[in-house]
Amino acid sequence: MPGAMHFNLFIIDTGHHEASWRLPGSYPLANIDTEYFERLARLAESVTFDSVFLADSPVLQGDPERRPSGRIEPLTLLTAAARATRRIGLIATASTSYNDPYNLARRFASLDHVSGGRAGWNVVTTAGDDAAQNFGLDAQPSHAQRYQRAAEFVEVARKLWDSWEDDAIVADPERGVWAEAGKVHAIDHRGQFFQVRGPLNLSRSPQGHPLLVQAGSSQDGKDFAARHAEAVFTAQQTLEEGQAFYADLKRRARLAGRDPDGVKILPGLVPVIGSTEAEALELDAQLDRLILAVQARDRLAQRFGLDPAQLPLDEPLPDDLPTEDQIEGAKSRYTLIVELARREKLTVRQLIGRLGGGRGHRTFAGTPEQIADTIEHWGTHGAADGFNIMPAVLPSGFELFADHVVPILRRRGLIRHEYQGTTLREHYGLPRPPSQFASTATSPARAGAVA
Amino acid sequence: MPGAMHFNLFIIDTGHHEASWRLPGSYPLANIDTEYFERLARLAESVTFDSVFLADSPVLQGDPERRPSGRIEPLTLLTAAARATRRIGLIATASTSYNDPYNLARRFASLDHVSGGRAGWNVVTTAGDDAAQNFGLDAQPSHAQRYQRAAEFVEVARKLWDSWEDDAIVADPERGVWAEAGKVHAIDHRGQFFQVRGPLNLSRSPQGHPLLVQAGSSQDGKDFAARHAEAVFTAQQTLEEGQAFYADLKRRARLAGRDPDGVKILPGLVPVIGSTEAEALELDAQLDRLILAVQARDRLAQRFGLDPAQLPLDEPLPDDLPTEDQIEGAKSRYTLIVELARREKLTVRQLIGRLGGGRGHRTFAGTPEQIADTIEHWGTHGAADGFNIMPAVLPSGFELFADHVVPILRRRGLIRHEYQGTTLREHYGLPRPPSQFASTATSPARAGAVA
Repeated sequence: MPGAMHFNLFIIDTGHHEASWRLPGSYPLANIDTEYFERLARLAESVTFDSVFLADSPVLQGDPERRPSGRIEPLTLLTAAARATRRIGLIATASTSYNDPYNLARRFASLDHVSGGRAGWNVVTTAGDDAAQNFGLDAQPSHAQRYQRAAEFVEVARKLWDSWEDDAIVADPERGVWAEAGKVHAIDHRGQFFQVRGPLNLSRSPQGHPLLVQAGSSQDGKDFAARHAEAVFTAQQTLEEGQAFYADLKRRARLAGRDPDGVKILPGLVPVIGSTEAEALELDAQLDRLILAVQARDRLAQRFGLDPAQLPLDEPLPDDLPTEDQIEGAKSRYTLIVELARREKLTVRQLIGRLGGGRGHRTFAGTPEQIADTIEHWGTHGAADGFNIMPAVLPSGFELFADHVVPILRRRGLIRHEYQGTTLREHYGLPRPPSQFASTATSPARAGAVA
Repeated sequence: MPGAMHFNLFIIDTGHHEASWRLPGSYPLANIDTEYFERLARLAESVTFDSVFLADSPVLQGDPERRPSGRIEPLTLLTAAARATRRIGLIATASTSYNDPYNLARRFASLDHVSGGRAGWNVVTTAGDDAAQNFGLDAQPSHAQRYQRAAEFVEVARKLWDSWEDDAIVADPERGVWAEAGKVHAIDHRGQFFQVRGPLNLSRSPQGHPLLVQAGSSQDGKDFAARHAEAVFTAQQTLEEGQAFYADLKRRARLAGRDPDGVKILPGLVPVIGSTEAEALELDAQLDRLILAVQARDRLAQRFGLDPAQLPLDEPLPDDLPTEDQIEGAKSRYTLIVELARREKLTVRQLIGRLGGGRGHRTFAGTPEQIADTIEHWGTHGAADGFNIMPAVLPSGFELFADHVVPILRRRGLIRHEYQGTTLREHYGLPRPPSQFASTATSPARAGAVA
């Protein structure tokens, strides 16, 4: 028995299957409807999920002709969701390559204040030249450089979140003293990528730091996760791969001097739910039939750096693909896709179907009982501390999950019956970090107080 | 009769008087309480104000020892306020010197989506080396350079807001066509400060562009306002100065080829309300007594680039102050302060009292009738299209304004009885701009469609 696991709802407009918006009854304008996201967050809260999560990239991704594209900025949307809910955690993706640490640290601290301690940050480095071209660059920085910047970015953000000690504010109108100046610290950071004086222009937030999440599974990504992440979203196709990733990341965390239990690992799961297995499989097949194969093939070719003509739809992938080293984009996802196609001997058309269902995440079509079984199986076999639930179709796929899978998980003790804590950190069983500048802290790093 | 005027509530924690937090019954933690801001926004909406406004700077301003400091990031707070209200406009300050146009344009478009067309952006260039030092610089760029960047920033933001035509989304699940690719445009901007490919990763927002507000009154600031601003917040101490500024800015707008009626001018007004004039004056005096004079003097010395010893509290300002040209900070505010002190022959201590009440904005202590009179007088004498209401004490000062001044303004036809429109642009009587890339637009600027 693994005890209660952790559950995150990954919300993406009409669902994770790229053809979900084409299903009868879908809501193709979901991506710009705030109430739609608020309703899903409330539903996830009603079944005591740990958190909801929004992905993001500072570029128009995919092809707007082909599926809902463009999104309301995630911290904005989660601020709205924060005011529509009371307990559930709120995790937003934000890029370390195309933000400044001062502004971004403040925005996450702001969400943490507004939500009463429920903010989480999925730290991404953002792959792709197209994003770089929105920020004055011709091409993206190298994979390694992006991760170096990310590490320093997080270091600066942590200093800023710590720059006000927890007890800095005294608010004594009689004496006319609002804060103790000695407890508000300049950070005077001077590093390779950033020079930031500080302090932050916002006092310490309920969680101290928002929960730090990471989702890349390259070597650089895993190193980063081992050092910084408190929750990891990952794409794992088979139990064996899931176990290997889980063991590897926990080991790396231990090597980095951290408690491996302080890194929660949540593989993605794309549930396609039917009242019978046959019904679930038919829905899955219906979705795949709605994918526009030629356009999906073109996108795959772009990811591989190939000409679309090199990828005939009904043949397997060519043998002479680039190695992961040659890819500057999302490295681990690239390898996962190639290995998936080779292992299961998929044609390009079949591979497109698998990817369309969850962009490389594990699709599982079955009954509620079967879905609960696989969740439990991964949890009891060292492959998952929880799951990142990515319904193929929204909202219906999550309504089915909430109504039919959650009660089974409850009976088996795999999900809480009610929230014990009020913050996202408490949901994930993670401590609240002390300020590194606090007089009682063991950290030697003390910057000068603001005189 | 000027007809209905425009009213903005400028919210700042416990009020615009720097000692307001020290009054008995104040709420010194207002600056980090989301519900507090939501309540004030709802109150302003209940008396049909056009908008609420939050100032900001990406640096810890002032002295946290001395008064409430640090703030929840304004777009975050206004997103919360958006979900707590239905009609009132929501204006946030954001800096063009310390943001990227891609991210910021998207965040304002996001607030516009989330609020159903109620977003406004107070465009500021951010004075001060201390802010620059949070963003990798040792010192701020020059005043002129900051304004050059601001102009290009706004140009890029406009292109991004226009990059999706209004009718780009067709959402046809049958054909599998979500948007018409020919109506989603790369912007391919290459300028002096920015290179941005676009399109924005969010479709066109309800207002097309958020309302553009400007608040600097230097020569550069007025030029910028004349070309770009749709509403102007300004500090004017006397009717004559207000008239001169009003005439000057309308003239500049005309010279810039714009309809002068498309630039609404709202001087700041710091009402200190009593049921009798004597009661109002006593509250004003009580507030001034609560200012910690020595600390306020030190801050004034910093603004002037002087040693505090050069500013004895009970003497007038020294004769040999720097000229406006020598100031790289907030130029027009500097001159306003010097002229105020010289015109009214104020000692440093008296000047501090005046500034503490609204940082250079016009304080008016009186009865509700007297406050309505001065509003009407400025409106009928060519000095104001409306007012930026900056209560010395919050929430009480605005509660008094709402309960006692607004009914008088209503009787005189100076404020609407109910909202006619749903968007901020409609409240201010301003048109919705068409996309510069729309096939029907007269603009020659057409960038390549995203293939």
